[in-house]
Amino acid sequence: MATGALVIGLDFGTDSVRTLIVDAHSGEEVASAVEAFPRWTEGRYCDPARNRFRQHPLDHLDALESAVREALSRAPPGTAERVVGITADTTGSTPGPVDRAGLPLALLPGFADDPDAMFVLWKDHTAVAEAEEINHVARTWGGEDVTKYVGGVYSSEWFWAKMLHILRGNPRVRDAAFSWVEHCDWITAVLTGTSDPLTMKRSRCAAGHKAMWHAAFGGLPPAEFLTRVDPLLAGLRERLYAETWTSDVAAGTLTPDWAARLGLRADVTVGVGAFDAHLGAIGGEIEPYVLCKVMGTSTCDMLVAPLDEMGDTLVRGICGQVDGSILPGMLGMEAGQSAFGDVYAWFRDLLAWPLVGSGRTDLHEEAVQRLVDGIVPALSAAAAALEPDAAGVVALDWLNGRRTPFADQSLKGALAGLSLGSDAPRVFRALVEATAFGAKSIVDRFRIEGVPIRGVIALGGIPKKSPFVMQTVSDVLDMPIRVARAEQTCALGSAMAAATAAGVHADIPTSQRAMGRGFETEYRPDPARSAIYRDLHGRYEQLGGFVANQFTPRGT
Amino acid sequence: MATGALVIGLDFGTDSVRTLIVDAHSGEEVASAVEAFPRWTEGRYCDPARNRFRQHPLDHLDALESAVREALSRAPPGTAERVVGITADTTGSTPGPVDRAGLPLALLPGFADDPDAMFVLWKDHTAVAEAEEINHVARTWGGEDVTKYVGGVYSSEWFWAKMLHILRGNPRVRDAAFSWVEHCDWITAVLTGTSDPLTMKRSRCAAGHKAMWHAAFGGLPPAEFLTRVDPLLAGLRERLYAETWTSDVAAGTLTPDWAARLGLRADVTVGVGAFDAHLGAIGGEIEPYVLCKVMGTSTCDMLVAPLDEMGDTLVRGICGQVDGSILPGMLGMEAGQSAFGDVYAWFRDLLAWPLVGSGRTDLHEEAVQRLVDGIVPALSAAAAALEPDAAGVVALDWLNGRRTPFADQSLKGALAGLSLGSDAPRVFRALVEATAFGAKSIVDRFRIEGVPIRGVIALGGIPKKSPFVMQTVSDVLDMPIRVARAEQTCALGSAMAAATAAGVHADIPTSQRAMGRGFETEYRPDPARSAIYRDLHGRYEQLGGFVANQFTPRGT
Repeated sequence: MATGALVIGLDFGTDSVRTLIVDAHSGEEVASAVEAFPRWTEGRYCDPARNRFRQHPLDHLDALESAVREALSRAPPGTAERVVGITADTTGSTPGPVDRAGLPLALLPGFADDPDAMFVLWKDHTAVAEAEEINHVARTWGGEDVTKYVGGVYSSEWFWAKMLHILRGNPRVRDAAFSWVEHCDWITAVLTGTSDPLTMKRSRCAAGHKAMWHAAFGGLPPAEFLTRVDPLLAGLRERLYAETWTSDVAAGTLTPDWAARLGLRADVTVGVGAFDAHLGAIGGEIEPYVLCKVMGTSTCDMLVAPLDEMGDTLVRGICGQVDGSILPGMLGMEAGQSAFGDVYAWFRDLLAWPLVGSGRTDLHEEAVQRLVDGIVPALSAAAAALEPDAAGVVALDWLNGRRTPFADQSLKGALAGLSLGSDAPRVFRALVEATAFGAKSIVDRFRIEGVPIRGVIALGGIPKKSPFVMQTVSDVLDMPIRVARAEQTCALGSAMAAATAAGVHADIPTSQRAMGRGFETEYRPDPARSAIYRDLHGRYEQLGGFVANQFTPRGT
Repeated sequence: MATGALVIGLDFGTDSVRTLIVDAHSGEEVASAVEAFPRWTEGRYCDPARNRFRQHPLDHLDALESAVREALSRAPPGTAERVVGITADTTGSTPGPVDRAGLPLALLPGFADDPDAMFVLWKDHTAVAEAEEINHVARTWGGEDVTKYVGGVYSSEWFWAKMLHILRGNPRVRDAAFSWVEHCDWITAVLTGTSDPLTMKRSRCAAGHKAMWHAAFGGLPPAEFLTRVDPLLAGLRERLYAETWTSDVAAGTLTPDWAARLGLRADVTVGVGAFDAHLGAIGGEIEPYVLCKVMGTSTCDMLVAPLDEMGDTLVRGICGQVDGSILPGMLGMEAGQSAFGDVYAWFRDLLAWPLVGSGRTDLHEEAVQRLVDGIVPALSAAAAALEPDAAGVVALDWLNGRRTPFADQSLKGALAGLSLGSDAPRVFRALVEATAFGAKSIVDRFRIEGVPIRGVIALGGIPKKSPFVMQTVSDVLDMPIRVARAEQTCALGSAMAAATAAGVHADIPTSQRAMGRGFETEYRPDPARSAIYRDLHGRYEQLGGFVANQFTPRGT
């Protein structure tokens, strides 16, 4: 292959797609560009009040073309000719219905404006009832519990629940849908012209973590189970897939048409796609037994461990364990917190109410925005000046339910130990400590099941901008935390996967070593604070036990 | 007695003394005046960080003279000559050390600036350790539990604890103090020149509710008990009092000196003093089995019941039951919430932090104050527009500990059921509901002990200015609440007591009927909301049970 080979990482986020062009040997950035999804930006096809979030496939194609062309236009002359590989990550589970040819229904005449014919975004919560039914049948149908490899609880955010919800509610889509695809699979299929639903290269991570695919089932869950959930699912197992692929594998090369649209050569290798967090973990240089935390509004916590060392270990209460879902040849495990930065945003909005919500202010909009933007930084500074207080406020971070351990979206948050002296910095500090205790509960869950955690890597927005939060998490975990230097770890991880799929490197770990940007900061725990937090964590668990076992109303 | 007789009610509050001159027959107001305590206003002798609050006796005398003269100056000519009675209420327990002549030590040379030689204000919390020791000895000394008539728990805010704290810490005061007086007893003694500590007319309510005086003990608790608490208390029982007096009794007439200072006739009758809340209940027209609630930053809840109907009933978990403490001939019972309006003020200050506490605002002080002042009214309007939500936020109002039921100052407040959608009005509504549930717990405590509650009267600042709070309390109690029309019920109650002591009326109930101002509003419960609150009260009690029984660290 040519010296000076370049690769492209595509990162399809919630609002936009990012194109990152990097040197396939050094990982050095050549150019990048971000393009927003135009229809999504206008709020089309969504109904936030009902938690319905859909994306039109044209948004993805239009933005993809613009972002790649824009990045190339910013790069030195001759860049396009040097590109040898391209891989896409997307959000997920973000499935959509396709016809026999693998074309998303929204691209067919008569379906262009039907939200049910589009991709059902990861955060769409319309399928709560269907998820409950799947869980119920999984526990009662008499066969093996098909949720055992996804942590024991199937979520309304996942593939089967969303598919069933739309099949039930929309007969036109039901009749027209031959099969279903995840967003990351479809992008790869489009670029390579391999979109036959029966043979397109499906992503291992999407299949294993969201569709209950597992080698032990010979693929997707048994047809008998699926029809027990709903006869509408009959036959789908055969029209979906049995084989899945890891992201070091090439799916094909660009079609002449897409090579022309993007301005690239037609022999560019396209790698198998995957979810953003998983390729982000690769970009953040995940390694065995080092927990890789993507920390933003919520967290996604990923761990990999050699298959032979894990044996038959089932890690209960996490969000899934899948052979090769993150790093090929390793068991990939996922966990997470349903709210992390969102907890701080909730408190910011609470405090901003007199300025924003009361309808009484006569301040200029700009002055209000400046005040609101200043709240979390000011709270962080004031809270950082306090010491942990074993007799002070204790918070529970479940304001958006609990993802790990043992997913339960019905749980809620709490504040205890409040006195008239509990001022805003003290409450904020307790909220930050609570999110850190939530992080500790995830580490504890792995350790209880015998899986060691030997280090922590942090990615995402919070690690870059919140030293107080990061120091608190380090103190609570009593572990050092390394913060990845790369700004765009997802796109970088996609580029590393592309470099592997294109044969520049032998495997993904080699790509990581060659192309990794390393770490910019390491937070180290303070022994005195860690000791106090060991006590305070007991109070957090006491409060959590009360909320989970006594205070939350349960269906019969 | 002269037609057109007038009486004066004096109300010594925390910051100032109010003088109210009223017609002894109609209760009609002739004039009033308020005078702040000058040294107190400057913050002298206090250390809020250590919860030390002391008042100089000169503050009381100076302000008393000014306030009476100011009120008389505002009244029509001839007013002074028509005054036939005067009675003072004060805060309490607010004891101070006196010499053999009954002179507060701070009025003696060498003690003028010693805070321990002054009155120890009701809210002074320096005597926490002493209260714990009194409670410990009461449970373990082998004799009768002397706290049985004060609800079973002796408070750091009360007479013996404060006295012991100062006797231990200040040898000079210990040597100089012959006896101790409550503020309300001393004012009466000063005006009548009957200040010999061995014979001055001590108030029944102060003695019974705060000093554990009871007929069953032949007066104050047994000397043996007191010396078991600390030998420093030896001999004090004899230098204090055995007899106590109700507020319908005349203590004497004005001394010529005080008649001259105040500009009144020397034959004016001075009634036995009492605590502000108790004379406030009289001014608010308390009657048997009608709970009289003084609702402000905290609440004082008072109930009277005929002695013969109560028999030997011991109401556990309240703050005391004393023969004649409120109405002569009735058992006077007291309960309360440690924080009521203070709970709302806490939330206001939390929300005001970005404006006031963050140090980042560049707004004008006046604009900030306007915004802060608008927070509770705006929250009330927004919260009132919501409906009770059985699945929403649940709060616990113990942000300043719990007074009733079963006083426990170590308890703290809580918020549960928080989600990302729990905005400021929803949290505020939960806090208001929590204070209402706290009010219900007091009503329940009486009813559980077999004492019926047949009506509710509300006095104080909150009933006048917070219709949303009052409606919520009515809905939660599922009872109507009448709001007293009088603005200054304490001073009016003192005037009613003065009219009785001076012989204008035969007894206090007759004074109440003649001089009462009636009620201005009646809140009536909404049956639909009351039904939801019955469920929500269960969740409040669940949360309270967790905090009290599992979450609060206990000494061994």
